[in-house]
Amino acid sequence: MNPRFQFDLIATQKRARAGIFHTPHGDILTPIFAPVGTQATVKSVTPAQLQDLGATLVLANTYHLYLRPGAELVANLGGLHDFMQWSNPILTDSGGFQVFSLSESNKIDEDGVTFKSHIDGSMHRLTPEISIGIQEQLGADIVMAFDECAPPQDRAYNERAMARTHAWAERCVLAHKRPDQALFGIVQGGVFPDLRQQSAAFIASLGFPGNAIGGLSVGESKAEMHAMLEVVDVVLPEEKPRYLMGVGSPEDLINGVLRGVDIFDCVLPTRLARHHAAITRTGRMNLVNSTYQADAKPIVESCTCYTCQHFSRAYLRHLIIAKEMLAATLLTLHNIHTLLQLMRDLRQAIVDGALDTFTAQFFADQEQSP
Amino acid sequence: MNPRFQFDLIATQKRARAGIFHTPHGDILTPIFAPVGTQATVKSVTPAQLQDLGATLVLANTYHLYLRPGAELVANLGGLHDFMQWSNPILTDSGGFQVFSLSESNKIDEDGVTFKSHIDGSMHRLTPEISIGIQEQLGADIVMAFDECAPPQDRAYNERAMARTHAWAERCVLAHKRPDQALFGIVQGGVFPDLRQQSAAFIASLGFPGNAIGGLSVGESKAEMHAMLEVVDVVLPEEKPRYLMGVGSPEDLINGVLRGVDIFDCVLPTRLARHHAAITRTGRMNLVNSTYQADAKPIVESCTCYTCQHFSRAYLRHLIIAKEMLAATLLTLHNIHTLLQLMRDLRQAIVDGALDTFTAQFFADQEQSP
Repeated sequence: MNPRFQFDLIATQKRARAGIFHTPHGDILTPIFAPVGTQATVKSVTPAQLQDLGATLVLANTYHLYLRPGAELVANLGGLHDFMQWSNPILTDSGGFQVFSLSESNKIDEDGVTFKSHIDGSMHRLTPEISIGIQEQLGADIVMAFDECAPPQDRAYNERAMARTHAWAERCVLAHKRPDQALFGIVQGGVFPDLRQQSAAFIASLGFPGNAIGGLSVGESKAEMHAMLEVVDVVLPEEKPRYLMGVGSPEDLINGVLRGVDIFDCVLPTRLARHHAAITRTGRMNLVNSTYQADAKPIVESCTCYTCQHFSRAYLRHLIIAKEMLAATLLTLHNIHTLLQLMRDLRQAIVDGALDTFTAQFFADQEQSP
Repeated sequence: MNPRFQFDLIATQKRARAGIFHTPHGDILTPIFAPVGTQATVKSVTPAQLQDLGATLVLANTYHLYLRPGAELVANLGGLHDFMQWSNPILTDSGGFQVFSLSESNKIDEDGVTFKSHIDGSMHRLTPEISIGIQEQLGADIVMAFDECAPPQDRAYNERAMARTHAWAERCVLAHKRPDQALFGIVQGGVFPDLRQQSAAFIASLGFPGNAIGGLSVGESKAEMHAMLEVVDVVLPEEKPRYLMGVGSPEDLINGVLRGVDIFDCVLPTRLARHHAAITRTGRMNLVNSTYQADAKPIVESCTCYTCQHFSRAYLRHLIIAKEMLAATLLTLHNIHTLLQLMRDLRQAIVDGALDTFTAQFFADQEQSP
């Protein structure tokens, strides 16, 4: 166990866990939500604003940064922390997910994937070794094994993809050198409990300092997602953090925490903000709605974020209608605050042994949308 | 003289002046540059960021806010200060300039202007009384007389426009009621010294608490602008602030200050930022330029703004190429800081009696572009 990446469990309640994950760029208090900075910027906010929101872990995308501006350039400028001026922990994904979802075409073989850039059509290749090499150049605290995310319902595809993911995980372990980076493995297996169990056992056997659950929140039902989390939860080692990739709605965060997840990331708060939507604990509000035209209230009256402490729904709607950039910034600040505050509250509830009351109240409030 | 809008001259050097203009929302230390918040937001920055930059006076556009979201809505939400959450002084223009430059068509008569909205083609009318009424609803600290800005070189047109501007100024004085708002008159007259002199004398005779110089920076030469400022400078009362409308490049600000101007506004720092350009004391830099691709230096090494204290030219270029909103935000912060800092330095130089040295150094530095 690399002491730089120790995980201390502070409290548990049923399957939910409150912990501290130590990294070279500071402690991550779990459960945690990580905002996504796809292109080395969390869209429409400055690092100073993100810091003020209390964000710790931020995710950046290897696929995007590899294509533009290039990993070598980032390395020459001191790595991602210096480049994007984020002094807290950073996580990079492996690039695999974007190769399968964004590239114009891709051809997979046992060794890796050849793909066409979505930006300029140029040809590129990612393998476990290349992905780890790029992630070492980017220099995040947490780096991810190169995996294949299959359509969740296709059993035959998931069997093949899981086998490849396992073989690639072993190659990532061998390729990974930087002791100041923690390499996390990724569990696959679609919506099939036996595959998920098999994958969790194999990934756990490789002794990663943290384990991720991939291939969820990609089209399966909520019930299927919950079932897969429950299968994996009892197999993955308790003493390592668990990371559920690509999940970020308030209800999904709570349901993940209740099933033993410690780390989450999602573009949801930033993407919804650009589509004029505010996340609240009782549902979403689209501020472009004419209902809010003369509404002097903030998005959420009890919210302590900068946006809700200052601006009316009417002003936010005006900014949206007038196509002002400030709309996206103010909604992003509110949305990220909402998710970070939810995680802080969940953590406190676990520490206080009050999680049942907290979640019962949350789901009762959800019944009444704003 | 309304004591709420007292102007104290602190120091002068030749024609340049350092003063304090008192307003109900705080003191404006002059000479001052006012960033423009056309639609009740200074584009791409939050009021908190603007406050951190040390901005005091901000301008908002009556034409835009009248059309959208409407002055009555702003009034119902507590006026512009509450609406846009700017607790320092605000100035609104009269709407006249935009009616002539933006509306799809306009028809002027002695009483006012009928025009077509550039947003939805609807028909509207502005008169001196209507403009003042709207500005009273918006609730800025400084409001402007409704004037007509003519093409600068057309003498016959300028004679007619000046006569109308004078008649309208008298009607604005009669229409204006709110004692917590200072109404400024506007001098017109194109590039014709005799018209400018005549206009300045007439506007001065109406006893406004401040006087503006309109119809400049609209296509005339620098020499013509300087000549008009010099003509007006000796006619306008010394004990009232002078406001040069729509001027904002570093060299124009200095040349204005040297000719007795106290207040300036311009969209330049925010507009250039959205076009990837940084304002520096030695010229403009376009950060999209491939020269900056791997450049680890900040925009200006000696600059104390948030952007220059944190980010490399290479990172800014990456944000621009990747079409990230943060590019506009970071360049806007730098550009506004540059102009505000220039004005603070100019003021200090006037107080210290060191303006000659300061301006000589500035223009010597300008010779070498970055």
